Amino acid sequence: MARFTTEVALRWSDMDAFGHVNNNKYLVLLEEARVAMMFTVAEAAGVPGFRQGVVVARHEVDFLLPVTVPADVRVELWVERAGNASFTFAYELFADDKLALRAKSVMVPFDTVEERPRRLTAPERAFLARWDG
Amino acid sequence: MARFTTEVALRWSDMDAFGHVNNNKYLVLLEEARVAMMFTVAEAAGVPGFRQGVVVARHEVDFLLPVTVPADVRVELWVERAGNASFTFAYELFADDKLALRAKSVMVPFDTVEERPRRLTAPERAFLARWDG
Amino acid sequence: MARFTTEVALRWSDMDAFGHVNNNKYLVLLEEARVAMMFTVAEAAGVPGFRQGVVVARHEVDFLLPVTVPADVRVELWVERAGNASFTFAYELFADDKLALRAKSVMVPFDTVEERPRRLTAPERAFLARWDG
Amino acid sequence: MARFTTEVALRWSDMDAFGHVNNNKYLVLLEEARVAMMFTVAEAAGVPGFRQGVVVARHEVDFLLPVTVPADVRVELWVERAGNASFTFAYELFADDKLALRAKSVMVPFDTVEERPRRLTAPERAFLARWDG
Repeated sequence: MARFTTEVALRWSDMDAFGHVNNNKYLVLLEEARVAMMFTVAEAAGVPGFRQGVVVARHEVDFLLPVTVPADVRVELWVERAGNASFTFAYELFADDKLALRAKSVMVPFDTVEERPRRLTAPERAFLARWDG
Repeated sequence: MARFTTEVALRWSDMDAFGHVNNNKYLVLLEEARVAMMFTVAEAAGVPGFRQGVVVARHEVDFLLPVTVPADVRVELWVERAGNASFTFAYELFADDKLALRAKSVMVPFDTVEERPRRLTAPERAFLARWDG
Repeated sequence: MARFTTEVALRWSDMDAFGHVNNNKYLVLLEEARVAMMFTVAEAAGVPGFRQGVVVARHEVDFLLPVTVPADVRVELWVERAGNASFTFAYELFADDKLALRAKSVMVPFDTVEERPRRLTAPERAFLARWDG
Repeated sequence: MARFTTEVALRWSDMDAFGHVNNNKYLVLLEEARVAMMFTVAEAAGVPGFRQGVVVARHEVDFLLPVTVPADVRVELWVERAGNASFTFAYELFADDKLALRAKSVMVPFDTVEERPRRLTAPERAFLARWDG
């Protein structure tokens, strides 16, 4: 029952003219959490394939609360599903410890040499299985 | 059976280190299409309420094709559903005339003085009804 | 006495929480003008080297007027100086035909294989000489 | 001889298609350092005027080294000059402890009610005098 938890730093310019963090900026924050897991942590664990290429196939995002800067933001991330050639992240984003956003992303490993999707390897599946929510 | 169609300009910096338009930047492009309809066109049609406040409650985005800069991008936007206090946009984004992305957004009119959601007005509902897909 | 003139599209999200186009976004707009000249126009003129690598060594930017969205933005760009291994762009940015910003950028051609600066070629110098302000 | 030092978090999407942090993103990082000093620290010190409005009149930025993500970035900031109605910040940005960028920004306090520049107050001048480099 593990989640990957990471703190992400808001920037003042994440706010738009309405004075709230703009909806598209949350996607950047979620990307930071994914990158920390899939690139940095995975590579340190001997699983470098994601850094070499992985694309987003789908996002679903529910915005629950507006956020203003400054706020302490924490993203909790886990793997909801891992198939042969894709997997699904689920996220909860907390601002000052209040749940502000829920999201899911369908991810596809991508072979950037062949320029096409590829299957997950066994070590990748084992790595993803650690973060089971 | 009308769609609101607008051309949006890509920027070189919309590409990320993988050399494709980053997934979060598409949200910015969809926002440009919404803003053109809800702020500029609606206001010119005597419907200024959206500009005074409207928030995104949910996004669903399916990424179908990678896009590189330069490309001619066109967003087609329509209203899939209009309820009492929210409505749903549907979008198709075309890059060089190829369908690259489909998305939906649930939108909520927001009273920025009272700081709470509000109901759609009759003129707003009539305006939205024009763009029936 | 030629200037390279290009229209760049503002985005609603270029505004920050003060309701004006944020200072860093102008740099993105100037980049759009540079890219249009150095990548698209130069390549079409048989001068592909800039697209393969060119870095910014210095920016100077004077902000003369605040800009809000929507506004029609035009960037005028010319080459103030071309040396052996660097050159200087000068810019004027107009919002609704009012001069809103003046800037200069020192640019350095960069060999991305050798990972080091390189000299300008004769065709590059001839191309730059067209835009003499 | 004090500098205001702050760590700023890079984001993966700060890199552009050349695989380096894009030049305009450094301006965002410098803004984070200014905001931390002028909004958060100044307000805590009983000097709230900057948060109510301050604009950038000029930037000068020298790019010394390319930066890739991940890197630990630290911005050191001080006040080089404080006049009656403007002041000048100087910055050094370090990536993994190497000096990667030097910059200066001319700042103007701005009265957002009257929509015009205003003079520095005595407490603002005293606050700025702390950070003398």
